[in-house]
Amino acid sequence: MGSSMKRFFSSALTDTFYTYSTVKIVQVPHTIIASLYRLLQFAIVVYIACYIVWYKKGYQEFQEPRATSIIKVKGLTKVFGNATSGYGNSSSQHLWDTAEYQVPPMENNAFFIATRQIITFDQEEGVCPSALDDKLFCNSTQLDACPKDKQTPNTFGYFTGKCVASLEDYNITVCEIHAWCPEELSNSTEYIVDSNDLANFTVYIKTAVTFTAFNINLRNVRDSTNFSCRYDKTNDRRCPIFRIGDILDSLKTNKTALLHEGGLIEIRQDWTCNFDFDKNSCFPTVAFSVLQSGDDKQSPGINYRAAQKYRIDGVDRRTLSKIYGLRFVVSITGTGGQFNIVNLFVAIGSGIGFMIIADIVCDAIFMYFHKSRERYREGKFSVCEVSATQAYQDSDSSVRLRTI
Amino acid sequence: MGSSMKRFFSSALTDTFYTYSTVKIVQVPHTIIASLYRLLQFAIVVYIACYIVWYKKGYQEFQEPRATSIIKVKGLTKVFGNATSGYGNSSSQHLWDTAEYQVPPMENNAFFIATRQIITFDQEEGVCPSALDDKLFCNSTQLDACPKDKQTPNTFGYFTGKCVASLEDYNITVCEIHAWCPEELSNSTEYIVDSNDLANFTVYIKTAVTFTAFNINLRNVRDSTNFSCRYDKTNDRRCPIFRIGDILDSLKTNKTALLHEGGLIEIRQDWTCNFDFDKNSCFPTVAFSVLQSGDDKQSPGINYRAAQKYRIDGVDRRTLSKIYGLRFVVSITGTGGQFNIVNLFVAIGSGIGFMIIADIVCDAIFMYFHKSRERYREGKFSVCEVSATQAYQDSDSSVRLRTI
Amino acid sequence: MGSSMKRFFSSALTDTFYTYSTVKIVQVPHTIIASLYRLLQFAIVVYIACYIVWYKKGYQEFQEPRATSIIKVKGLTKVFGNATSGYGNSSSQHLWDTAEYQVPPMENNAFFIATRQIITFDQEEGVCPSALDDKLFCNSTQLDACPKDKQTPNTFGYFTGKCVASLEDYNITVCEIHAWCPEELSNSTEYIVDSNDLANFTVYIKTAVTFTAFNINLRNVRDSTNFSCRYDKTNDRRCPIFRIGDILDSLKTNKTALLHEGGLIEIRQDWTCNFDFDKNSCFPTVAFSVLQSGDDKQSPGINYRAAQKYRIDGVDRRTLSKIYGLRFVVSITGTGGQFNIVNLFVAIGSGIGFMIIADIVCDAIFMYFHKSRERYREGKFSVCEVSATQAYQDSDSSVRLRTI
Repeated sequence: MGSSMKRFFSSALTDTFYTYSTVKIVQVPHTIIASLYRLLQFAIVVYIACYIVWYKKGYQEFQEPRATSIIKVKGLTKVFGNATSGYGNSSSQHLWDTAEYQVPPMENNAFFIATRQIITFDQEEGVCPSALDDKLFCNSTQLDACPKDKQTPNTFGYFTGKCVASLEDYNITVCEIHAWCPEELSNSTEYIVDSNDLANFTVYIKTAVTFTAFNINLRNVRDSTNFSCRYDKTNDRRCPIFRIGDILDSLKTNKTALLHEGGLIEIRQDWTCNFDFDKNSCFPTVAFSVLQSGDDKQSPGINYRAAQKYRIDGVDRRTLSKIYGLRFVVSITGTGGQFNIVNLFVAIGSGIGFMIIADIVCDAIFMYFHKSRERYREGKFSVCEVSATQAYQDSDSSVRLRTI
Repeated sequence: MGSSMKRFFSSALTDTFYTYSTVKIVQVPHTIIASLYRLLQFAIVVYIACYIVWYKKGYQEFQEPRATSIIKVKGLTKVFGNATSGYGNSSSQHLWDTAEYQVPPMENNAFFIATRQIITFDQEEGVCPSALDDKLFCNSTQLDACPKDKQTPNTFGYFTGKCVASLEDYNITVCEIHAWCPEELSNSTEYIVDSNDLANFTVYIKTAVTFTAFNINLRNVRDSTNFSCRYDKTNDRRCPIFRIGDILDSLKTNKTALLHEGGLIEIRQDWTCNFDFDKNSCFPTVAFSVLQSGDDKQSPGINYRAAQKYRIDGVDRRTLSKIYGLRFVVSITGTGGQFNIVNLFVAIGSGIGFMIIADIVCDAIFMYFHKSRERYREGKFSVCEVSATQAYQDSDSSVRLRTI
Repeated sequence: MGSSMKRFFSSALTDTFYTYSTVKIVQVPHTIIASLYRLLQFAIVVYIACYIVWYKKGYQEFQEPRATSIIKVKGLTKVFGNATSGYGNSSSQHLWDTAEYQVPPMENNAFFIATRQIITFDQEEGVCPSALDDKLFCNSTQLDACPKDKQTPNTFGYFTGKCVASLEDYNITVCEIHAWCPEELSNSTEYIVDSNDLANFTVYIKTAVTFTAFNINLRNVRDSTNFSCRYDKTNDRRCPIFRIGDILDSLKTNKTALLHEGGLIEIRQDWTCNFDFDKNSCFPTVAFSVLQSGDDKQSPGINYRAAQKYRIDGVDRRTLSKIYGLRFVVSITGTGGQFNIVNLFVAIGSGIGFMIIADIVCDAIFMYFHKSRERYREGKFSVCEVSATQAYQDSDSSVRLRTI
């Protein structure tokens, strides 16, 4: 094997540095196939140039932006309170400004507008009759309904084990509970925002976008921004100020249910920027969609409970609010692109592989379908017998190929 | 060179449209190598078809979802207060419902459950003795320990420059400070949640997912969702309601430390959806992991301070809480896929390149290892001398090749 | 066509399993071109090995981390109040600790430090004269300026339709409004943080990072972390505690405007980890940048309004704050990489395609530029006439090619 290896390396060396190897080509004069071949190649070149390089911007490097939005809501509304049960506060009126309905007051890429609040004022820890809505009815002789120290089904409080007259209707006896009293269901006031006032609320979305790869920072607010504008899909797509009414009108959803039960709305800001041109000509486009509507069969809308606590004479008190509202999420998507020589080469390179399709198609036509396929095969193929037994079997055809 | 250029273009034109060029093929009758060649090709085709196209879903276009989760925690617990220093409030009891322990009440893809609170009631700006824990001891003759108008080391207040008796022990004198008084360390009450009550808390996670590329919106809550369910890894993987106890049990961490010091837990919701089938059959899978445990050597757990401010007779007062608790982060991951003809072509195309491996392997066998490698080389190679000097050197072999 | 099809499949079968096909190679003894050919190939191999595999880490699988940061701010400052209008509170002093200036107290990957607050104490719903700054001047005979029940232009309240004396200057009459009174513009106190105190505030950022693909969890806080350190770009890049002053000094922005109007600052934590080495040697790098400065021509800085509500004798009251401040966003970027055999193969495979460049270049030299191009072409090409008419036309050249 030593001599074999020696020859192997000697041969490899000769091959490597003294002779250049290239594939042998058979030329077939045939105008139609040749034209077809070039047509196919042309189509592939057009595909690479137009689709991959130009349309898909294969000559660019891309990056998605990192972004932060700062959002301010402006607007004022009068709300009128209605007691949620027979007992309780009579009708009252309140003014809601931003500090009242935008809770929490600052979030990252999101904001919330309360549209309905069920407020229980002056809650204090203690004992009180459970609400009629809890359906914890009992009578003083049979107390099985009120198991002492167990949690009530709605987890608002613990049973004290006593049976007392309801606050809402003195003729009915209900279980007494140890809880934050009065219970929300028995004595609270409901406030609903006026839908016309809400429609006139405005949202100002100020977004700062960073494309680290290109060292570019952009804002949607420019020196030329006119702050008396209102966003309008057809007329003013660059305005950073939105009327809530316009947003709601563009959504295909039950608006009454949305305001009553709350909902989740996405404001999608899409930054598709071509930084081969002036970066300042890049403005985001905006689209709205409902992620959670107010009239789903199961678990519609959005609500949560929040308490504002205060302390009088050493005793904790709180105002409990069950808050329904519109939660807006600002999603920032998009890509920025900039010319990049490496990406251009990779795009072209990945396309060039498709060139082989033209060879395969034309070769297949000649091999299997063309009337002169025999002559084509004879020209294209030569036979080389390497094993003695097979050489004899195939000698005829091989000889024939050689002697054409 | 003009004539040369002319011939160049004339030749190029002829090549281009009148003759079709194809590589010349040498056929080697050899059953074993031929079969090996086909076997290798078959293996590569199987790899492309099964792994790249089928298993890796190379025929699909993919997109990650954008998602928003709305989270509600439900549960009630009694907490018992203990004064954190000798002086201070005696033991007291409080009821914690959602509004008390879920702070802030609404977040994006996250929620917090307070498990321990150190509460300082009725703080007011003024002067008071520093806490014994601050170790700011002094005596009235030497006041170096209390540098007037400097901040205390814990940055709770400013030294007034006076030395006064401690509130906690009248026999000890400490520096007086100008701060929100009383200081947290000297007079606060600690409340710890009962771990059995906490285990029975439930979390309802409602997620809305958007796949923009396919124009698909999905919720994890469907019309068929049964709201009395509890998530169970083996029996009910589709339930959107989780028992805190079940989540904690699934984590490998020190639970006592977690409740005492707080911690960070990730709830990972993975949406891997195949939209070639019914989109409604796609449900997320859920996994839990501890990102920050309560027993790390350095900086264990999570805590923060928050104040609820109120105003009595024109004076600001506040309830300061140092809140330890479980912070849950809902991460939404996954990919949705849908059939896409371009991706299928690209997947096949990228695999076809591997076909060359079969050629390389079989060629190498014949060239270097097969006993008839001489005859193979003679059949495969022809020599073309282009330079006069070299032509003479190689004439023998080239003639030999031709005349076989 | 039956016989044709039969022969087609018979031929295909023979081709497939009994004969191995390989391209015929023409060897051209030419040291210079051969060396050039190998040089080009070598360059491509070096490119693949060094750039694609080694530099771009083509042998690794990558994943971006999911991360959560827990942030604590520490520091204390004295603020001095100034009445914002002639009427109102005289100068007052307050102590701001973390609970006062870090609002909201806990966020995901973000925090806020209030640097200026305009506080309106003891607001209550009612009627009051509008502020002079509103410029709603009127006189008692002409009330057109005060349209009853319409909202004021700044949406702070509703006109009552009356014209009354201003609180700030009794000689001027202004429209009366129904609003939360007193109005912010007419009676509020402004507090500004001392910039030297602010510079000494510290931020502790504790980040937990997850690389799901590699099953790796990392924290930037390790057992060896020294908590008395301060981050320093040159000396201590691993310290998780940052001085606000150091951060502000590293930014190229108007600091005075930043503190007065507020701003948005990004803290970018970059986790670029090579998990082929010890994962514990991976620490994040940190960079700071201004996303929103305080001196933009349009809409500078950041501010929002928040109210703390409390209740005295059944009446809601609130402390309204217009809060300007520094909003910090912690962005976590980066990639973790680990050896992956499939990625290595794909990286090599994608590079191998470039090998064809060497063939194209050398072939082009021989075909079109080399002095012996005629002989090269004669050796490389053979002609196969498939159609009778064209065969005659080209017979000369084809004969010539054969008979060399």
